[in-house]
Amino acid sequence: MDDIRMRPIGTVHNDVTEATDEAWGKVISDIRFRPELAGVADGLETFTHCIVLYWMHQTPPTAELRRRPRGRKDMPELGLLAQRARHRPNPIGITAVEVVGVTPDTVRVRGLDAIDGTPVLDLKPYYPEFDRRDAAVPEWARRLMEGYF
Amino acid sequence: MDDIRMRPIGTVHNDVTEATDEAWGKVISDIRFRPELAGVADGLETFTHCIVLYWMHQTPPTAELRRRPRGRKDMPELGLLAQRARHRPNPIGITAVEVVGVTPDTVRVRGLDAIDGTPVLDLKPYYPEFDRRDAAVPEWARRLMEGYF
Repeated sequence: MDDIRMRPIGTVHNDVTEATDEAWGKVISDIRFRPELAGVADGLETFTHCIVLYWMHQTPPTAELRRRPRGRKDMPELGLLAQRARHRPNPIGITAVEVVGVTPDTVRVRGLDAIDGTPVLDLKPYYPEFDRRDAAVPEWARRLMEGYF
Repeated sequence: MDDIRMRPIGTVHNDVTEATDEAWGKVISDIRFRPELAGVADGLETFTHCIVLYWMHQTPPTAELRRRPRGRKDMPELGLLAQRARHRPNPIGITAVEVVGVTPDTVRVRGLDAIDGTPVLDLKPYYPEFDRRDAAVPEWARRLMEGYF
């Protein structure tokens, strides 16, 4: 299977320098585009939310297959693709955030869980048809997420 | 900004050979992992839904910045990142789907809008905290999605 190559569309700018597992909900981030992409998000301000796809550049791709979420003993050992952890074969993060404002070269969002300097791969308007599901999660996943946003 | 390189985790297998804009909701797809990743999704069956991140390999990355959704005259001209179209700087698709079943080398899902042979970059369990939002979309976006799933 061939490798896939992509070029980030821009970079996250915020005042978070270290990845944590709590209180991301109020973080304001600017996603600044490469200059040649100016205008590429025009119209995104007519949506209330968007999804940010970013590359977790401080977490190298892993060859590991299983682990306990956050290494916690009170969590079950699971395949990496049954988790949202940074540790995964391709460390892409996706998070649905609020759209705060759009200019030709920047999208400002609230609630992005990515540190300053994170490369951004794509931005998508949040469409309930693609994105909103009445989903159930196991009990450990509810415990894990307490206080994250 | 450096290019990012990633290796697909697997491939979509289904009986859809041509991309369309309707009736994806009932499509059953198997995502088959590379052999060395066997077991990497163990536990995903305890979630009702997952998000599939895939590479739209038949749509090359575009340098275009704006277009009308599906080229339709009744749609506004917008930046590509204000759309869910295949045409985008990095043609990654993301869709929330139902988890039908998990084996060591395959995840079976319902409702994936990707054709047979599509490379898959990542799979994530659907977490309402990350993924579920009470989002509003503009009127044209509602019209555009009629019949898609």
